[in-house]
Amino acid sequence: MTTTSTTSQSIHGLLNAGRMLSDGIPPRDLQQATEQITDLEEWFDFWIAAGERYELLGGEALENGSRVSGGEWLWQASLCFHYAQFMWFHDPAKREQGQRRKVELYNRAAPHFKPPGERIEIPFEGITIPGFLRLPEGERPATGSPCVLLLGGLESTKEESYLFENICLRRGLATFAFDGPGQGEVFFEVKLRHDFERYSSAVLDVLEAREELDPNRFGVLGRSLGGYYALRAGAGDERLGAVVAWGFFHDMEDFDAMPKHTQHGFVYVAGGSKNDLVQALDLSDVAENLRAPTLLLNGRNDPIFPQRQMERTIAALVNAPKVVVIEPEGDHCCHNMGNIVRPRMADWLARQLNAGN
Amino acid sequence: MTTTSTTSQSIHGLLNAGRMLSDGIPPRDLQQATEQITDLEEWFDFWIAAGERYELLGGEALENGSRVSGGEWLWQASLCFHYAQFMWFHDPAKREQGQRRKVELYNRAAPHFKPPGERIEIPFEGITIPGFLRLPEGERPATGSPCVLLLGGLESTKEESYLFENICLRRGLATFAFDGPGQGEVFFEVKLRHDFERYSSAVLDVLEAREELDPNRFGVLGRSLGGYYALRAGAGDERLGAVVAWGFFHDMEDFDAMPKHTQHGFVYVAGGSKNDLVQALDLSDVAENLRAPTLLLNGRNDPIFPQRQMERTIAALVNAPKVVVIEPEGDHCCHNMGNIVRPRMADWLARQLNAGN
Repeated sequence: MTTTSTTSQSIHGLLNAGRMLSDGIPPRDLQQATEQITDLEEWFDFWIAAGERYELLGGEALENGSRVSGGEWLWQASLCFHYAQFMWFHDPAKREQGQRRKVELYNRAAPHFKPPGERIEIPFEGITIPGFLRLPEGERPATGSPCVLLLGGLESTKEESYLFENICLRRGLATFAFDGPGQGEVFFEVKLRHDFERYSSAVLDVLEAREELDPNRFGVLGRSLGGYYALRAGAGDERLGAVVAWGFFHDMEDFDAMPKHTQHGFVYVAGGSKNDLVQALDLSDVAENLRAPTLLLNGRNDPIFPQRQMERTIAALVNAPKVVVIEPEGDHCCHNMGNIVRPRMADWLARQLNAGN
Repeated sequence: MTTTSTTSQSIHGLLNAGRMLSDGIPPRDLQQATEQITDLEEWFDFWIAAGERYELLGGEALENGSRVSGGEWLWQASLCFHYAQFMWFHDPAKREQGQRRKVELYNRAAPHFKPPGERIEIPFEGITIPGFLRLPEGERPATGSPCVLLLGGLESTKEESYLFENICLRRGLATFAFDGPGQGEVFFEVKLRHDFERYSSAVLDVLEAREELDPNRFGVLGRSLGGYYALRAGAGDERLGAVVAWGFFHDMEDFDAMPKHTQHGFVYVAGGSKNDLVQALDLSDVAENLRAPTLLLNGRNDPIFPQRQMERTIAALVNAPKVVVIEPEGDHCCHNMGNIVRPRMADWLARQLNAGN
């Protein structure tokens, strides 16, 4: 394999500092990455090494009976492996290695979380939809807890939402983060599809039977490409009583103006064809079916989803009560102001689903 | 008032990035501070403005019934006010303004924490020792919860330990953070004294009567100057069954080699006399009385407490079972690796006090 790029600009294409910090990368590790990585090819190995250090710490903690630290450090390791393989499309073997190790470490971590993460595998049309259910601590409401489905985007998977889950859980919301078509574990079985909503409905079929959950209080939140999926999911299933599109677009008409690495990513998870991708992603066919209260959040400075994409979606959602927040200083998904927008989205969901916090 | 210094070096004397981030200053705010503040005199106003923004967010959240966000943003505001007045010795009026607002905001925030913080005011020799008790969520152990006293240092107060409290609480440890002589609210009544241990014992007298706490499972942790206090507290009271000195020194023999702003700070909280300070701070008279298991943690690169100070303390604690951790890459209190050492200290306390996590 040849080095595809050696410019620091390429590294900063991978490195959205706000996103990485908000998702849980420790500031010191991020600082060392920016100081030490001069060649893009070093990115993968840097984060693998960081992940292996946290894996050691996690193993030691569990041996000492320190389960909270054990769970958190194994999660921290998993997150490093996630960012190692992030956008690593030019070297599929390393990318798969990073994905597999991320999943394995998260599986080890989840039972030790407070509250724990229960891995649930949902069979659907010959494949398995894997996800993690977490229930708020404390006394369970008489009708069961409200629950939010959490959807990753182009390059985010169920393992990346741990901290956001904690934000929801502290507000009385159960969470179920899962991989759909083209995402994480499912990528190896099914690539990006036009009908994500059929997968989220399959998930609801299983979750609504759980006695810990209130079948009448489900919501969905998706980020970036997942924001688009969340709108489809809500349009396709009336059981979703609240929808958050945390970063959203309407279709692929502005594909060619996106950053190159984002274009690569979209085509990659779609299985290699830009034409298939452009046909697959278009909200027009379902937009008017969405009737649930919907929060649309984006940053004015989003370099990926342009303003006219946002406007098109807002105009198309003719039947949904909408709250639209376009943060003037926000970047993609407002990751640069994650400490403001993340709690606010969770608060909005908690209010819509009467979580009481 | 004249500007005392305009060099960026002075700002970095205030700005220990690792400490501020580990205590909860959002990375984005810290980055803006480093980018925008060019004159030290701007430091105070920058953080006041940041604090006021969070205060607004907190108030809005509470009005919307979002208590979790309300509590956290008011705490965030309080922390900004804390760092506004941090080391602001040359302008006592502003310093007091920052202290008072910090306290007020934290008082508003604490009832909304999960778990809540209960303000307790302990009368002692004509003054009031204020502190916050927080109890782990979930079922209470039959004998009551183990509890850790948390001691601030030269420039840290009870309001600064919120995130560290959360680390303890998730491990089953109750926490009680309070201001002692020369610290926070108490500074205005009593300056730094030689007998901190009498104040911590007065706190224990009150806490051991609380039915939610196990009177046989108290510990203490102090940071920086508070690490020294923790050793004194443990030496002076057998009820403390585990002691953590998170940053420690033995006496003031190396005072003249300390950074100037630290020297100023020490003399300031001592009431203005270096001679009084040097006489007040010496572990020699009580070191051999400490018999509880003790964790001593420091960084090899600590610019404040030199190696020979650490060695003197280690040698003097002849009767305590000791665990000594000197991190080769650690700075003062290992703040630059807070995400490693903070959970580890809490894990050690949880094991010593049989918290079971």
